[in-house]
Amino acid sequence: MTERLSLFDTTLRDGQQTQGVQFSTPEKLKIAAALDGLGLDYIEGGWPGANPTDSAFFETARTERATMTAFGMTKRAGRSAANDDVLAAVLNARTPAVCLVGKSHPYHVEAALGISREENLENIRASIAHCVAEGREALFDAEHFFDGYAADPGYARACLEAALEGGARWAVLCDTNGGTLPVRIGEVVSDLVATGLPGDRLGIHTHNDTEMAVAGSLAAIDAGARQIQGTLNGLGERCGNANLVSLLPTLLLKEPYASRFETGVTREALAGLTRVSRMLDDVLNRVPMKQLPYVGASAFAHKAGLHASAVVKAPDLYEHVPPESVGNARVVPMSNQAGRSNLKRRLAEAGIAVAEDDPALGRILDTVKAREDEGYAYDTAQASFEMLAREELGLVPDFFEVKRYRVSVERRKNKYNKMVSLSEAVVVVKIDGEKKLSVSESMDETGGDRGPVNALAKALAKDLGPYQEMIEDMRLVDFKVRITQGGTEAVTRVIIDSEDGAGRRWSTVGVSANIVDASFSALIDAVNWKLCRDVVDAPSQSAVRA
Amino acid sequence: MTERLSLFDTTLRDGQQTQGVQFSTPEKLKIAAALDGLGLDYIEGGWPGANPTDSAFFETARTERATMTAFGMTKRAGRSAANDDVLAAVLNARTPAVCLVGKSHPYHVEAALGISREENLENIRASIAHCVAEGREALFDAEHFFDGYAADPGYARACLEAALEGGARWAVLCDTNGGTLPVRIGEVVSDLVATGLPGDRLGIHTHNDTEMAVAGSLAAIDAGARQIQGTLNGLGERCGNANLVSLLPTLLLKEPYASRFETGVTREALAGLTRVSRMLDDVLNRVPMKQLPYVGASAFAHKAGLHASAVVKAPDLYEHVPPESVGNARVVPMSNQAGRSNLKRRLAEAGIAVAEDDPALGRILDTVKAREDEGYAYDTAQASFEMLAREELGLVPDFFEVKRYRVSVERRKNKYNKMVSLSEAVVVVKIDGEKKLSVSESMDETGGDRGPVNALAKALAKDLGPYQEMIEDMRLVDFKVRITQGGTEAVTRVIIDSEDGAGRRWSTVGVSANIVDASFSALIDAVNWKLCRDVVDAPSQSAVRA
Repeated sequence: MTERLSLFDTTLRDGQQTQGVQFSTPEKLKIAAALDGLGLDYIEGGWPGANPTDSAFFETARTERATMTAFGMTKRAGRSAANDDVLAAVLNARTPAVCLVGKSHPYHVEAALGISREENLENIRASIAHCVAEGREALFDAEHFFDGYAADPGYARACLEAALEGGARWAVLCDTNGGTLPVRIGEVVSDLVATGLPGDRLGIHTHNDTEMAVAGSLAAIDAGARQIQGTLNGLGERCGNANLVSLLPTLLLKEPYASRFETGVTREALAGLTRVSRMLDDVLNRVPMKQLPYVGASAFAHKAGLHASAVVKAPDLYEHVPPESVGNARVVPMSNQAGRSNLKRRLAEAGIAVAEDDPALGRILDTVKAREDEGYAYDTAQASFEMLAREELGLVPDFFEVKRYRVSVERRKNKYNKMVSLSEAVVVVKIDGEKKLSVSESMDETGGDRGPVNALAKALAKDLGPYQEMIEDMRLVDFKVRITQGGTEAVTRVIIDSEDGAGRRWSTVGVSANIVDASFSALIDAVNWKLCRDVVDAPSQSAVRA
Repeated sequence: MTERLSLFDTTLRDGQQTQGVQFSTPEKLKIAAALDGLGLDYIEGGWPGANPTDSAFFETARTERATMTAFGMTKRAGRSAANDDVLAAVLNARTPAVCLVGKSHPYHVEAALGISREENLENIRASIAHCVAEGREALFDAEHFFDGYAADPGYARACLEAALEGGARWAVLCDTNGGTLPVRIGEVVSDLVATGLPGDRLGIHTHNDTEMAVAGSLAAIDAGARQIQGTLNGLGERCGNANLVSLLPTLLLKEPYASRFETGVTREALAGLTRVSRMLDDVLNRVPMKQLPYVGASAFAHKAGLHASAVVKAPDLYEHVPPESVGNARVVPMSNQAGRSNLKRRLAEAGIAVAEDDPALGRILDTVKAREDEGYAYDTAQASFEMLAREELGLVPDFFEVKRYRVSVERRKNKYNKMVSLSEAVVVVKIDGEKKLSVSESMDETGGDRGPVNALAKALAKDLGPYQEMIEDMRLVDFKVRITQGGTEAVTRVIIDSEDGAGRRWSTVGVSANIVDASFSALIDAVNWKLCRDVVDAPSQSAVRA
């Protein structure tokens, strides 16, 4: 017999407490649509009244399946719930569900609110009852619950009871300061259930201050709670909330959870999880963390040469879940430690089939090794690795040849006596025997200078003859530089991430003592990779894995 | 009665399996020194023989307290341990301890190694015994232990027994694929201990594939294991290893661990944890994650409003541990109280005494804040911070003014038909009313081009009039570039490390959308800092802390 587990997302409310995070209304709508698509039960959209953006969101947000929830606070003492304007603003958002936060730690009640313990219990009961009377499903977030339970278990418990008596569907145990260890969370929930509180009306809300928000949520479920509150990518105040992106696959794919519980999230929806996680990073303009459990670019990356041949034969012996179950993919990158089997595998993934005994395999390995000694790194720069391999295999057409380039940066005072800079680049290429000179300066919409690499990229992209069309949707999205050792000299290693209109993203590397030169060489690799994909591979539509 | 808990760091070995991470020998030495300073029991430095960098590391690395450990593999079948060349290379590193990995999953033994189960047991026993006979402390990493235990508990257990019989000080249960949940880890360790294996010879090695590596480590300790293997900042293959930076504060500051266990890490050393974590990011040229438990910049950040005043009155009600216990700091927006005392301390460290009520303190804080919003980072760039403070305090003489500069990079074929590049820079400065034009090209002894920043630095240093002598011993020793957010635009942040003949080393920062411009501004800060030290501070010979 499976039991129903309820999943409550608070990315748009607690997640917005993350330092530096402030969602616009369109961004909130986009995230809500993704959460709804995943199949989560509740979406907490914000605190209407307290925040104008949140009110605007509730006016337009519509869900297919998820219950839209407004966040608010239990009423203040000395007035009725019906006369509390803060509570009224929350109800005015007209969401089917309302989640009210209230105190459950006696010290916070007396010192922070300055009211009696009994008044607080009454505030909880009456506020929840009012929401229910208004036809809403009500949830109660018991703030500082675990610290309160340590200080006075009877009182903390009474707060939950007040909420449940008021008609709350869920009473949620919040580890507000984030310091309660999973073992302790499990003990407390067990106590509550053993003394008669209904587990299927208890929820858990943890924070990641000891790096155990996910484990703490599961400990509560193991002990009988039946709702988890969390956020996408673990957004949230301080170190973040419980990360639903890590919790969902564990709940759906791993025992004892997979056979014991049923959630609103299907296996099909789970296969879109990586995309949802990256979409959020995109909204936040963050580089996705490679090490993220399940959805990170490194989550199924195999490094050691030893493993590489075995993982292809029996992936389940080397991977705790299949990468495709969460919409992720296996990566077998190149590195010093890689062997021939890594190489074959990586080539196959790039759509390049090579016979086991092809002597090019050995040459490719030698070239990788030699380049790594010069300071190149092919671990991240998969597209440059691919170009190197294609070169050795004779698979790269002569698209164009760069004959020379020149770039200058000048900084001086403008007519308003302000220091300004300007970059200008000239690139000379030869295509099909024809020489083409292009010049470009680097200037954004505001007249600001974006620097020499930008100017070079623009000049190069200005006229590539028959290939012009294919590179027009290319964009340089990230740029990383470090000084490293190349032989006996310090050299500059530049890694460039590019993106195109089809949503492909690929990384290339360039190395030189001259930073502009290193950047230009990474840029050329990026353009050639794109041309290879569009010109050489286009008919076969090979999978993109850069 | 407290029990001893052993802490084993594998940042330099398993941590180096992180995608994109490749430590140089000097970097390894720097990290090892930090680990030793923290008080960890073992430092696993790499796999000598398998990797030339690792062999070089073991030749020079020395520790005060930590036991330096070389990693290797149990011997192959069909030869004696004494005749196994791979094992010999490990022993040749002459470390006091050796950690050998071996199989403990019957399928891996039969399919991957292609040997019998008995041969594998004998390989483990004989390899460990050989290390012990050679006078080494031996550890055994039981690869795929938890999956092996699920497949055949008797055999997995026999592998541990073989290692312990061979004389291993520790048999370490490795969750190689990272998929075992903490509850299951606890059950297995309990089984092992209940059936007679000595808990004080069992270690735990987890991975973060379900975001529970820390919780899994603690579950093993709760069940009786007594060694934890992990890495700084959770580096490691795929999603990383157990993060010691999160584990250490929990073990030292939280119950039941704090009173139950004793480790080599003191409270004093723990107060340096934030610095150690950021040092590693610095080595990796990574932006430190704000959300990191305990040591992240947001870990003790309180949102403005309700909490802000209360947290100052009773921090223990809002913080699960005191931020200073891990060397971190409380961040309370709207109140720069904490900011002011931090600032005074930092200025004092630079030899700048400021009165408590000096209004310049407020101005410095505002400027730092505004600059950080533009993308500056003063955490590492202490010299730039100092220059900013000196400016606000009116302590910087007008040494020289840069009127304009121009730099160009040209790449073309030379007379031997080889592509070469050349950078040339013109810098115009005004010193004591006199305008000076200097031009320089960037070329090293071999005729190679060192790039535009080098050319600019040379031109600037060519003629600084009365200050010429003081900057002649300056050298640019490191250069780091990151793309970061400045306001709404992506900008380039350059950090330059400089060194002089007196052995001083200092870091400065520059920010601009143009990488050359950002570099030049960091360069100017570096020169000004040096002049301040030599011209303004020279008589007092203040301590150098850059």
